[in-house]
Amino acid sequence: MKSSIFSYQQLYSFALNVFLKMGCSNEDASLATSVLLSADLRGIDSHGIARLVGYVRLWEVGRINTTPNIKIIHETPSTAVVDGDKGLGLVVAPKAMQIAIDKAKQVGTGWVSVKNSNHFGIAGYHAMMSLSQDMIGMAMTNASALVAPTYAAEKMLGTNPIAVAVPAGNEAPFVADFATTTAANGKLEIAQRKNETIPTGWAQDAEGKPSIDAHILKKGGALLPLGSEKELGSHKGYALGSIVDIFSAVLSGASFGPWAPPFPAYVPMPENMPGEGLGHFLGAMRIDAFRPASDFKSNMDIWLNRFRNAKPAQGHEKVYVAGDIERTMEGERMKTGIPLVADVVNDLTVLGNKFGLIIEAHK
Amino acid sequence: MKSSIFSYQQLYSFALNVFLKMGCSNEDASLATSVLLSADLRGIDSHGIARLVGYVRLWEVGRINTTPNIKIIHETPSTAVVDGDKGLGLVVAPKAMQIAIDKAKQVGTGWVSVKNSNHFGIAGYHAMMSLSQDMIGMAMTNASALVAPTYAAEKMLGTNPIAVAVPAGNEAPFVADFATTTAANGKLEIAQRKNETIPTGWAQDAEGKPSIDAHILKKGGALLPLGSEKELGSHKGYALGSIVDIFSAVLSGASFGPWAPPFPAYVPMPENMPGEGLGHFLGAMRIDAFRPASDFKSNMDIWLNRFRNAKPAQGHEKVYVAGDIERTMEGERMKTGIPLVADVVNDLTVLGNKFGLIIEAHK
Repeated sequence: MKSSIFSYQQLYSFALNVFLKMGCSNEDASLATSVLLSADLRGIDSHGIARLVGYVRLWEVGRINTTPNIKIIHETPSTAVVDGDKGLGLVVAPKAMQIAIDKAKQVGTGWVSVKNSNHFGIAGYHAMMSLSQDMIGMAMTNASALVAPTYAAEKMLGTNPIAVAVPAGNEAPFVADFATTTAANGKLEIAQRKNETIPTGWAQDAEGKPSIDAHILKKGGALLPLGSEKELGSHKGYALGSIVDIFSAVLSGASFGPWAPPFPAYVPMPENMPGEGLGHFLGAMRIDAFRPASDFKSNMDIWLNRFRNAKPAQGHEKVYVAGDIERTMEGERMKTGIPLVADVVNDLTVLGNKFGLIIEAHK
Repeated sequence: MKSSIFSYQQLYSFALNVFLKMGCSNEDASLATSVLLSADLRGIDSHGIARLVGYVRLWEVGRINTTPNIKIIHETPSTAVVDGDKGLGLVVAPKAMQIAIDKAKQVGTGWVSVKNSNHFGIAGYHAMMSLSQDMIGMAMTNASALVAPTYAAEKMLGTNPIAVAVPAGNEAPFVADFATTTAANGKLEIAQRKNETIPTGWAQDAEGKPSIDAHILKKGGALLPLGSEKELGSHKGYALGSIVDIFSAVLSGASFGPWAPPFPAYVPMPENMPGEGLGHFLGAMRIDAFRPASDFKSNMDIWLNRFRNAKPAQGHEKVYVAGDIERTMEGERMKTGIPLVADVVNDLTVLGNKFGLIIEAHK
């Protein structure tokens, strides 16, 4: 697949200007851009600038409010529910995470459930906000239904990611960020573009039978929960996706399960939605609310060093810790640029024309 | 495999007397027995009375203290670290969970990390303590290393379970309780007894290649994280097991990763242990710290009802929610009794002889 390379600064400037044209404040546009592009930097291409067009379409149909009144509607010393007022999840989620961090400063931990929001980019960005504060960070979100529960032939849950970031001392931190499915939808899209089949275990057909057709979701099929099938533990992936849905949406009053609002603006909203918008769940735990941060961090260094130096399996050179591959990618792409496939470049060019903005590949 | 049926009361009386003979107080012996047998009732036979002999052996070698001074060694309004003083995890964990619940009553949520403990039975018991309080409960524990990280040929993590219990209104609650591996070690033991092979995806050999040998763990092999292999998301199961290890053991000062203390008393303790004993992590979130409990519970009823009535896949009659199968089993076994295989009955008979106690099957 042909791709062009753009510098981080080029994409930053382009996305920033799109968010400004949509009516975001300077502050919100910068924040949304940083969150969005953190996905491209970390190699999670499906959640980065490739989605910018999608956000614009949601704004055009009135599902995204670029001047939201994001507010706490209920709270205790360690909890809050935030109403995102249909804002960009890219803006609502980091603001909610900041509330969680502020509460953790006061009483040890902070937990914020968010309703009435939209897609928030990569969960890892929000979780990692805790790292500089010597806190453990957590972020989850529900999403439009693409996943069938174990034994079901119906899309009921989103890919519902979980991110957990843990600070360390001298070692690079632990940063897990993963969909609770076997494979992300983005991987099916890549197979579609390449005209390839997908591995058994990623998806099922309309009757619930295993499928290797990369287009099966358009034919009534569904993604599979982590574990793929019952014998390999798919009920566990289904439980994880359920937990994310409940913490993010039932706890906040967002719409949940098969009623989660769809990301594509052309898909009609579900009928009889039981709540408002998408939901997120953000958490922060202050390390020294448990033990001295220096003790914890020196133990985390031992943990990280031991796992990074575990004996590799035959045919592999190295064992990774969650976040290692993304961190390496981030360093490389910040230096050498971010590759975008032709489809994405075309989308961005059309978007640029709409707003009088130019996007040009790095020479 | 031949098995005999025992009533809950028979097993309760037997286990209670064993814990009393070990020197537990009446209160601790009752608590330990209730926790232990909740596994047998819920059909998680590997974690129930079959383990009683193992606990006795740990006590005999001085690794379990039956008169522990369980105490909070550090706390904030929403957090605590508890030193289990080498007590039975069956006693330490519910006491730590009660601390989490008490903190949630005060400030919305409570989070307790525990060190210097032992195996705590099923995670689900502790998480479910929250249900009658209109709280969401969480429980995790690390455990002796049986699991290889993705790309590794070394046992580095335990089966590290996660349990989450969510109250509902009229519907039966959501209760997830699962190991972060593809299959629990107990499933390999069942295959061993039946002289059967295991499915591909459960375990690997000493070099890290897939294995269907049910005895492979004794030959340098390892269990696989949920997801089985990288292409099917095993790095996600590995990340989950890591999170459980970090929250339970690094946050509390327990021993972690490959240094977690082994359950079998004959296995020597790892050298250079970085912390004390096993670790647990317990959490409680008060529902009305987020939104009125009645609103939440009526939404949870909608959620549960919708998932329980999802369209079944071809060849299946019903879609389950986490905890449904265990709850049905609990109702049945409370009425008709608990089947124990001959090996377990023999172990209990030997144990009974040691302590002058009789165990007799239900007529």
